[in-house]
Amino acid sequence: MRARDTVTAAVLLIGDELLSGRTRDVNLGHIAERLTAVGIDLREARFVPDVEDEIVAALDVLRARYDYVFTTGGIGPTHDDITADCVAKALGRELYLHPDIESIIRRREAPPEVMASRLRMARVPEGAALLENPFGPHGFRIENVFVMAGIPRVMHAMLTSAIGRLEGGKPVRSRSITAFVTESQVASPLGQLQARYPDLDIGSYPFSRGDRFGTSLVARGTDVAALEALAAEIRALVEGVGGEIVEEGDG
Amino acid sequence: MRARDTVTAAVLLIGDELLSGRTRDVNLGHIAERLTAVGIDLREARFVPDVEDEIVAALDVLRARYDYVFTTGGIGPTHDDITADCVAKALGRELYLHPDIESIIRRREAPPEVMASRLRMARVPEGAALLENPFGPHGFRIENVFVMAGIPRVMHAMLTSAIGRLEGGKPVRSRSITAFVTESQVASPLGQLQARYPDLDIGSYPFSRGDRFGTSLVARGTDVAALEALAAEIRALVEGVGGEIVEEGDG
Repeated sequence: MRARDTVTAAVLLIGDELLSGRTRDVNLGHIAERLTAVGIDLREARFVPDVEDEIVAALDVLRARYDYVFTTGGIGPTHDDITADCVAKALGRELYLHPDIESIIRRREAPPEVMASRLRMARVPEGAALLENPFGPHGFRIENVFVMAGIPRVMHAMLTSAIGRLEGGKPVRSRSITAFVTESQVASPLGQLQARYPDLDIGSYPFSRGDRFGTSLVARGTDVAALEALAAEIRALVEGVGGEIVEEGDG
Repeated sequence: MRARDTVTAAVLLIGDELLSGRTRDVNLGHIAERLTAVGIDLREARFVPDVEDEIVAALDVLRARYDYVFTTGGIGPTHDDITADCVAKALGRELYLHPDIESIIRRREAPPEVMASRLRMARVPEGAALLENPFGPHGFRIENVFVMAGIPRVMHAMLTSAIGRLEGGKPVRSRSITAFVTESQVASPLGQLQARYPDLDIGSYPFSRGDRFGTSLVARGTDVAALEALAAEIRALVEGVGGEIVEEGDG
């Protein structure tokens, strides 16, 4: 861990199917929410195909640059499941059959060839800790890399296990004000507010409901008092331009 | 365009909200599907925050590496909308107010300060071509970079405009066989099939329905005859291990 207030992370999503459009990813949003909730700042996400050089290159960049790297996908039993191999290669470690995962896999009988394929899922790099999965074979953590399944409900379980092992930063809080106001109406004063609150982030997210256009204004940061002050200023700004506030939220 | 059969692309998704979990991205899957349909091979996607250095660095890598780069997000009127600035910086071009976009924006009256913010959306790099958006300000193409909005329905329109300007590769076709068979049951023979059909890609995607587990096996490639032959072999393989086929599909 680097010595600083903010703990950072990246997500590496592995799988041809995510880039061909065959499967629509739902994991990134879930991971983003969960990390934000425990005060970890997700800084980058990359989608790469099931290609060793691509996976290893991305791992090398991301694990050097961020405190934590979370991967999804590529840990099943088939020929295109190469994430464990790539992590081992990137970290210069050997894979071995983890006895705990092996015994889970062997609980269900299978012909030798089928069992051989399934046992691929028991291969972890030397020194790895397991990320429990109640549905079957576990994921693993090695150094600052957390290797999780691509199937959402399995990934969720592994992420819960992973988060229990993390050192979080200060939790990031948010205040949101949603109003029927266009981004343009508030853009300039919002820029001035951002300049006056450099430690907080202000985001603006337009939406449409029926024929009406609106914007959610979201302030985020770790300093709750500053956040309240900024939220009050945003509220005044929106009301000042005649915007109808439809929702306020804390997070 | 590099001289080769396969036309490649990357997507760069820009926005703090995608990494904080506040907004769940739905654009990547849509772009992936549309590019695949016109025979463009999406090789990588990256999510980065609204931070100039991050956006410029990602643009530099991706535009050098792939035939096309598609960006989403960061082209609205607010202080955190910096995509046009970053693209201009990466390409060493100046921004100017595009008269066509400016006239669209000026159709709706607004106080001077509001108009000034809105006119940020008319700024494009010198030499850019426009990507039409019937809902308002256009996106743009400059060199091999296509700059699109983050709001899905606006992005869809801009992507349609972009795709009309692309030179596609050979269309990639697919054959899928979905069956109640576990990945492990077919993993080993599937690996052998992959070795025998090196020009095609075989993917396997597990799913669960109620208490039953199944797998979709998908073959992809440009050679339709080879694809049919491979699909027949996959079907025989699945039936050989007693797998119940529930669906077959062409794409």
